Amino acid sequence: MPDRSTEKFLATCATLTDTALSQRLPAESREPSRLHEAMRYSVLGGGKRIRPALSMAAAVAVGGRPEQALIPACALELIHAYSLIHDDLPAMDDDDLRRGRPTTHIEFDEATAILAGDALQAMAFDWLASEESLDASTRLAMVQLLAKASGSAGMVGGQAIDLAAVGHRLTLEQLEQMHRCKTGALIEASVRMGVLSVVGTGGRDMEQAMELDRYAGAIGLAFQVRDDLLDVEGATSVIGKPQGSDQARAKPTFPALMGVDGARTYLATLLAQCQENLAGFGPEADTLRGMAEFVVSRRY
Amino acid sequence: MPDRSTEKFLATCATLTDTALSQRLPAESREPSRLHEAMRYSVLGGGKRIRPALSMAAAVAVGGRPEQALIPACALELIHAYSLIHDDLPAMDDDDLRRGRPTTHIEFDEATAILAGDALQAMAFDWLASEESLDASTRLAMVQLLAKASGSAGMVGGQAIDLAAVGHRLTLEQLEQMHRCKTGALIEASVRMGVLSVVGTGGRDMEQAMELDRYAGAIGLAFQVRDDLLDVEGATSVIGKPQGSDQARAKPTFPALMGVDGARTYLATLLAQCQENLAGFGPEADTLRGMAEFVVSRRY
Repeated sequence: MPDRSTEKFLATCATLTDTALSQRLPAESREPSRLHEAMRYSVLGGGKRIRPALSMAAAVAVGGRPEQALIPACALELIHAYSLIHDDLPAMDDDDLRRGRPTTHIEFDEATAILAGDALQAMAFDWLASEESLDASTRLAMVQLLAKASGSAGMVGGQAIDLAAVGHRLTLEQLEQMHRCKTGALIEASVRMGVLSVVGTGGRDMEQAMELDRYAGAIGLAFQVRDDLLDVEGATSVIGKPQGSDQARAKPTFPALMGVDGARTYLATLLAQCQENLAGFGPEADTLRGMAEFVVSRRY
Repeated sequence: MPDRSTEKFLATCATLTDTALSQRLPAESREPSRLHEAMRYSVLGGGKRIRPALSMAAAVAVGGRPEQALIPACALELIHAYSLIHDDLPAMDDDDLRRGRPTTHIEFDEATAILAGDALQAMAFDWLASEESLDASTRLAMVQLLAKASGSAGMVGGQAIDLAAVGHRLTLEQLEQMHRCKTGALIEASVRMGVLSVVGTGGRDMEQAMELDRYAGAIGLAFQVRDDLLDVEGATSVIGKPQGSDQARAKPTFPALMGVDGARTYLATLLAQCQENLAGFGPEADTLRGMAEFVVSRRY
């Protein structure tokens, strides 16, 4: 179970991120107001802010403060929010419920949902490129990292593989590859952007950076295995979407491929990998250690 | 009528842009192949490449070579292509035909079309941020410019206003405001990015930059007035979409508001404004002058 300090860290990161997002997103009163309303509705709907917390924990692990990763964290959430809006569309996963509330195309309409997602993506890159507390080369590295992680070789590519896989039987290797793109790439980017926000592009300790990359890869996969298990175990009221919805669509999942017990064992292995990759770090990486515990044991 | 040298310049820009886009876009064979196929189909479908030509003409007007604006030009086309894919979706304009070919969601499917658009947007920012022939501050300025021009205060915002306006009577001022966002912002960004690619963010001649901005504003509006007139005048075979499709949807247009003759007179006024704003330039701005002539007189 995640300890008290991880819960507290997550809450701090969520508050920092929510406050910054709320202040920076265009006001609902600003024209086109329906679009801005949909953007705020989608972003400020109370997500767990796991990506921001990972970014901030990575910043701490390399000797920085959580606040140094705040704008990268916000940019990550904008990308994450846009991807959820588009994933929920009728032509994609066709979900009506997200985090216990109507999805954006249900609350507004499909056209507004498509446009809100598009505008949030552009905004993520604008915020990163405009953040003057980071030097120019760091900002450029982050724009490239986030663009690659969210594009056709990352998140969007993973979603395309996922859609093509519905109704097909994937091998474990194919399933992992899909998730490494679909959710893993952005989670890896979260860790890397957190590191970048403290050490920049210059004096990086390459060994340390590679260990954190491996940590990020393992936690990204663990996140998805836990998500799949929650879909089997959880109740709608807790996870905020209809339970068993993956099964209902014959989506390939880890429990479907390995059995529920197999998936639980795999999750434990991934947690061990996360912790091993942090073995070279001192107490400054305790938050990252706690985040791994949280990800594998979360109930929502 | 546009003269020979403008036609030649347009052809050169289109070849440069098409070649670079084709070389840089992920191969169709690369996984996820259906997504990459859809991206290539949408971008390489033979557009007029007016935004690249404007960028390159602006580069020439400030003493540079067209090639210096090549990557910004490609990024502009990626954004333009993604916006067309999303605009054509059933939930938006619901168009089956674009440039005489099936639209992306017809040729592939809706989910693939949404994802292809999303991936193209990310790619535009990646290419800009990664272009090492431009210095870091120039690349950052371009990312910001392109993100603002394509986001909720620009292109996407204009599309939202447009959708909200269907069936309503707009004033001329509201119609202009909508188009200044929807198409004008990206066209203005084309000119400004062309200038930036030559002079960078440092030694800009502010007077010159403002004149070019005003030129860009006028040509952006002229582009839309001409588009509206083509929808009334043109035949499907020439403009590549069903003629009268705006009228059929009760979309507000310049001819609907000012009459066909009124719109033609307005177009002549905008052309005069374009040329006036170039009065302080020598023969190096002849290509920009020719581009304005082309935009107001084009038959497709």
